[in-house]
Order: sequence, then C-alpha cells, then structure tokens
Amino acid sequence: MNGSDEERLRRLREAMVDADLDALVCRLPENVVYLTNYWPHHGFSFAVFARDGSSRVLLPEIEEEYADRSWSEVVPFGWGLLKDDDLYVTLERHLTEARDQMGLREASVAVERGFEVVGPSYRAAEPVVPAGPTAELLAAVFGEASLVAADELLARLRSRKTPFELERLRLANEIAGFGLDAFRQAAAPGRKESELSAVAEEAIRSRGVGHDSARLVRGFAEVGAGIGSYKGYLLVPSTDRVVQEGDLVMIELATVVDGYWSDLTRVVVAGDPDEKQREVYELVFEAQKAAANLMRPEVAFSEVDAAAREIIEAAGYGQYFIHITGHGVGLRYHEFVPILAPGAEGALEEGMVSSVEPGIYIPGWGGIRIEDNVAAGPDGPDFLSTYDRSLP
Amino acid sequence: MNGSDEERLRRLREAMVDADLDALVCRLPENVVYLTNYWPHHGFSFAVFARDGSSRVLLPEIEEEYADRSWSEVVPFGWGLLKDDDLYVTLERHLTEARDQMGLREASVAVERGFEVVGPSYRAAEPVVPAGPTAELLAAVFGEASLVAADELLARLRSRKTPFELERLRLANEIAGFGLDAFRQAAAPGRKESELSAVAEEAIRSRGVGHDSARLVRGFAEVGAGIGSYKGYLLVPSTDRVVQEGDLVMIELATVVDGYWSDLTRVVVAGDPDEKQREVYELVFEAQKAAANLMRPEVAFSEVDAAAREIIEAAGYGQYFIHITGHGVGLRYHEFVPILAPGAEGALEEGMVSSVEPGIYIPGWGGIRIEDNVAAGPDGPDFLSTYDRSLP
Repeated sequence: MNGSDEERLRRLREAMVDADLDALVCRLPENVVYLTNYWPHHGFSFAVFARDGSSRVLLPEIEEEYADRSWSEVVPFGWGLLKDDDLYVTLERHLTEARDQMGLREASVAVERGFEVVGPSYRAAEPVVPAGPTAELLAAVFGEASLVAADELLARLRSRKTPFELERLRLANEIAGFGLDAFRQAAAPGRKESELSAVAEEAIRSRGVGHDSARLVRGFAEVGAGIGSYKGYLLVPSTDRVVQEGDLVMIELATVVDGYWSDLTRVVVAGDPDEKQREVYELVFEAQKAAANLMRPEVAFSEVDAAAREIIEAAGYGQYFIHITGHGVGLRYHEFVPILAPGAEGALEEGMVSSVEPGIYIPGWGGIRIEDNVAAGPDGPDFLSTYDRSLP
Repeated sequence: MNGSDEERLRRLREAMVDADLDALVCRLPENVVYLTNYWPHHGFSFAVFARDGSSRVLLPEIEEEYADRSWSEVVPFGWGLLKDDDLYVTLERHLTEARDQMGLREASVAVERGFEVVGPSYRAAEPVVPAGPTAELLAAVFGEASLVAADELLARLRSRKTPFELERLRLANEIAGFGLDAFRQAAAPGRKESELSAVAEEAIRSRGVGHDSARLVRGFAEVGAGIGSYKGYLLVPSTDRVVQEGDLVMIELATVVDGYWSDLTRVVVAGDPDEKQREVYELVFEAQKAAANLMRPEVAFSEVDAAAREIIEAAGYGQYFIHITGHGVGLRYHEFVPILAPGAEGALEEGMVSSVEPGIYIPGWGGIRIEDNVAAGPDGPDFLSTYDRSLP
C-alpha cells in the first residue's frame, strides 16, 4: 500500500528543525518504514532522511519492488550472491554517496542508539540490529562528533499516528481477526495450547497476504488454557497442555502487516461459561469500556488506567489486576509511549494509540483479559480493532 | 531437555584461560543458551559465566521453570508487573551482586559488541538486543576499562558443536520434517505461496511442541512457486501468487527448537515433473552429495564448495549457481563459521555444522535448491537432517 503521508513528513521536518538536526540515518526496520514507507525484509537497508523532507533508502536489490519511490530515492545494492561485495564496504560506499549528494558533509546527524526492545524485520527469524559495526560505519561516514541520538525524537514522533498510519493499523487489526476466528473455532476440549496458537497464525498468514493489498503478514500467538490463562498476566509460551472442559482459554496475539502491528487478547471458555466466568468477564469488559472511553486528547495516562482499575477494585478484584492498563502500539508490538499506568506522567495527544487491556488473574482459577487497540480521536476513542468483544 | 555438556564447559573454560578472561557476560538469547542451556523467552535475561565454569543466570520469574539449574545458579527477578522495579535498576542490582559474589570485582569481562545479525528469543515478534543502555549498564557494573569484546571467542567456540549440541540440532531437523510433510501434501495447483508457508509453520508448532521433550518451537517458512522459485536464490517473502500446474515450488524453512536451529530447502513440482525439471534436480542432488561427502575434519571450506560447483559447471549450468554452497547453522539460522564458498579461508573441524545447499536458478524457468544440515563427523558427513531428498 503506497501513498503519501504529508502530515508525517511535515511533523518530521518540524521536529528536525526544532532539534537543529540535518538528517536522520536509521537501519532498524521500524524506523525505516516510518521514514520511507517501506518495511525491510532482511534488515540490511538504511534510510537517510534530510530536514528538507527528501530521503534516500539503500536496500538489497531483491527488496526493490517493495520500496515506495513516491517517498524516497531508492538505491539498490547487491547483497548475498557471489557477485556482491562485502556488505559493509557496500554500505559505506552508498552512505558516503548519500552524504555528499544530499549535502550532509557537515551535517548534524541523528542515529539509533538506545533501541534495545526492537521491532524485527519481516524475517523475524533473524533480526538485524545496529551494534558496534554500525556505530563504526556511521562514525566513519559522518564523523563521530556530528552524531547524536535519534531515539527520543523518533519515539515522540512515532507515538502520534497520522490518519494514514491509523488506516494501516486498522488493516493489521482486521487481518488479526482472521486469527481470532480460527482460534474461536478451534478452542475446544482436547486441543493443545500450541495447536490453537498455530491455527491462529496459519489463518493470519494464509488469509492475510493479498488481503486489501497487504504483502508482508505474520501472526505470533500464545494460548494459555486453565492455569495457562492465569499465567497470561505475562506473555508466556504455549505448551502442550490439553484444554479441559470448562477451561478459560486465552489468546494473546501479535500481528504485523507491512510493518504495522496489532496487539489483541481474547478469552473464550471451552464449553459453557459458568457464573463466575461470566461475572469476571463482564467486569473486565466494563473496565475496558471505561478506560477506552477516556481515549481522547489531554486525558492523563494515569487517569485512563484509573478508570479501569477503579471498576475492578470496586468489585473487590483489585488485587488480581496486577499489570498496567495499556501501552503504545504501532511500528512495534509494544511502544513505550503512551503508558497507561498508575503514576504515569503525561497525557494523551490526538492520534496516540494504546492497547487497552485490563485483566483479572486469580490463582487456582484462571485469567481473563480483553485487549484492543484504541486511538485517541479528537472527540473520543477510535477503536482500531473492532473484533467482537463479547464472551462467545 | 536438560542435562550436562561437560565438553562444552571444558572448551569454554580453556578458551577463557587462553584469552586471559575472567568472565563472559551475555544477554543475547543465542549466547545465553550456549552458556546456560536455557533459551530466554523475552530477552531480558543475562548470563554471567566465570572461567572456573560456574555460572549464574538472571531471568524474569515467569521463565524460571525453563532454566537449567544443573548448569547455573538461577536468580529470578520480577519484571513486567506493577509490583516490579524498573528493569535496568533490577538488572544493575543483580549484576552487581553477581560481580561481588562470583569474585569478579577486578575481572576482565567479555561482552557482546559486534552481533548485528542475531538469533531472536522465542518471542521473535520483539527481539531484545544489547545497545547503548546495556553498554552503559555493563560499564557501570564492571568498569569500562575491564570490558572486551566476546564476539570472536564465542563465534569460534560455537562453530564446533559437541555431541550434546548435535543431538539438539537433530531434534530441530526432525521437527522441521513435520513442516516439510505438510508442505509436500499441500503443494498443488491452486494454492497460494503464503498458504503453503502457513501450513508448514502450523504443522511445526502443532506437532513440535511436546515432541521428544521440545518446549519452545517455531517454524518460519517462505515458499516460492514458478518465478518465485527462481527468486529463491535469496530468501524472498511468500506472496499471494497461485501455484500453476507444472510449477517448481520451493520451500525455504527455518525451524527453532529450544534455541537450536534447522535450515532446510526442498523443491517439489506441482504435478508431474518434466524432463528438464528431473535433469536439473538430479544434477543439484549430485552436487549436494559430492559436497556433503567432504564434510570431515581438515577439508578446506573452499574445497567443499568446489565439489558442488565443479559438478554443476561440468554439466553446463555453472552460471546459474550464483551463491555459496553453505554456511554455519546452530544457535542461529545463519552462523558465519563455516562458510563454504569459493576462496573462503579455513578448514573444517570436527563438529562444525554447515548447510549444504547448491542451487540452480534459470531466468524464466525457475529454481531448484536442496539444502540439508550436515556436521563434519570424525570420518565423514553426519547428516543432522534426514528428510527424503528425492523429487516426490
């Protein structure tokens, strides 16, 4: 899905002027897609983005057809075959050329320094990240003295999604729904947690690629049944535990579509829900609605958290809601802004996107969480995920 | 699968004495599993390994049951819940304690500096890597002056697998076979590349978790049909291209089982193979056998490559074999040692594991590659992957 996002480019230019920066040079796929509207497959690509809004993306030839020429000048390089030079020699040559041709010889350049939790490329099996060799490469091309950290500026900019980005996130959530459908159909006594995870991932990839122009699609699911749903307060691996009649069965589902992520949780009961399961489910649902309703500009992060927490506390379950209410979602499965938590500093701005995911986890009983992705719209919540939230 | 690997520990201790190192401190999952026989789920764990062979692993409480106490002292810490401190404050406290209790106050400590291509944790959707904050943390605890790069020492040690590690790799390859079975059954005209990838991944996770004590299992498949098989000379994403009667259909399959990887490629024909498809397939198969037969100690890397290349060249297809013959496999999908390539320096040592993967890619026709994982056994090749190599 190509197309321009003038709003994003305008904000980038403004922020760079404010920070007195001449260029951003990034290689993490999450930042390359932010700067160039192209999500790297392998992680060997670089984006060079100048404060006048012009940009250049260096990428392996094999990825060329995925680049968006309406955003950036595209410079393909050979990589991976006998004919090709050493990757870092190639990169240094092309970065030097970009520096000279884009007028960045004496430039102040912001680079990735602090990203430790990262969004992988499409090839999640082998992420590529900037470590020592990249630091040396950038110092060699731009001069160590001219390099500053881009991390905070990028985190701040990325936290406020443009309408263009909200559409991408809607699509990721829609495709995630294929996985939730498959999960709900399969979640019955006798199935293993790992099987239920696998069928959700299968549906996302099978049905998602090609859906509404989506190209690079993957799901990552974890399912917990019975005691496994209790442990769902943190993301834990699916095991070969077999679902029992009456179990709570929770799916935590990450989905990525062309670099944009969805983060959803749903719970079903394997069989007919009993009274307590219904009661706790409804309580979590009410808490989620209350928090989501506050997703609008100028509401404090902590206030959104409190809205969910107060409902759960009033019902006597406060001790079982042991995590925060939400975190940013966007070009990563978890973004650090916003954080909807007790005591969190800061307030929502229009376009910020958060998971809204209260949960109740009772030892010896199980866990229930309902998680959706919600943008702070100008007048209230904008649900990017619209999948059925009732207990099936 | 727990159990001791005295041979690995002995080699580690010896290498540390030779390098005059007191400790290794690592957080990349690929190195944590190498040092402690435990593969992190989230990537927030640290391994501290002393030259006397004692080690300590710091890990989130939720992962404690996956640690191997027969290898390491296990120090769980709270992470991710409201009750927990800031992660880096927690890590600094526990690393300082490890330093003092393990006698590493004036130690020479090797740390990860150069890893840019990395093996993810089980949670491939959000890898965690050492960047600026980890460098600062380690400097604060151990003193910047005492830190050296561990990269080369680890790469060298990791390249020679012990019998214990070879068994792990055999298991990963066995589980990968579930995915190849599913692919072969499904690869027919009318199916999409993305569907075929998805069913292979589904089978690996559904059938792999719990198989012979495997716990953390994932497959990552890419399928190319027709022109897609031609592009298989490099790893390219599965698209929504529909398989046509007579197409070559190639699957490139990464599988990870508890931190140990398999890297396989198979090709089928959707329908009955024609004469040229059979001829090229047999040629690639012969080339693979010739290269694999040289997988034994002291054979030069380049000699293994030449064995495959000469057969393909002699048949007049040399110009279509445009990549190397193999690369290391182990705690990553691609390891850098050995490299079976023209002009590569170095020779095989016992226990080195390489992919052996000659291929022929003809523009307008398609591509055929056969890839297996083979160890250099004392007297010849030890195939870790034993999946049927004939054209079905």
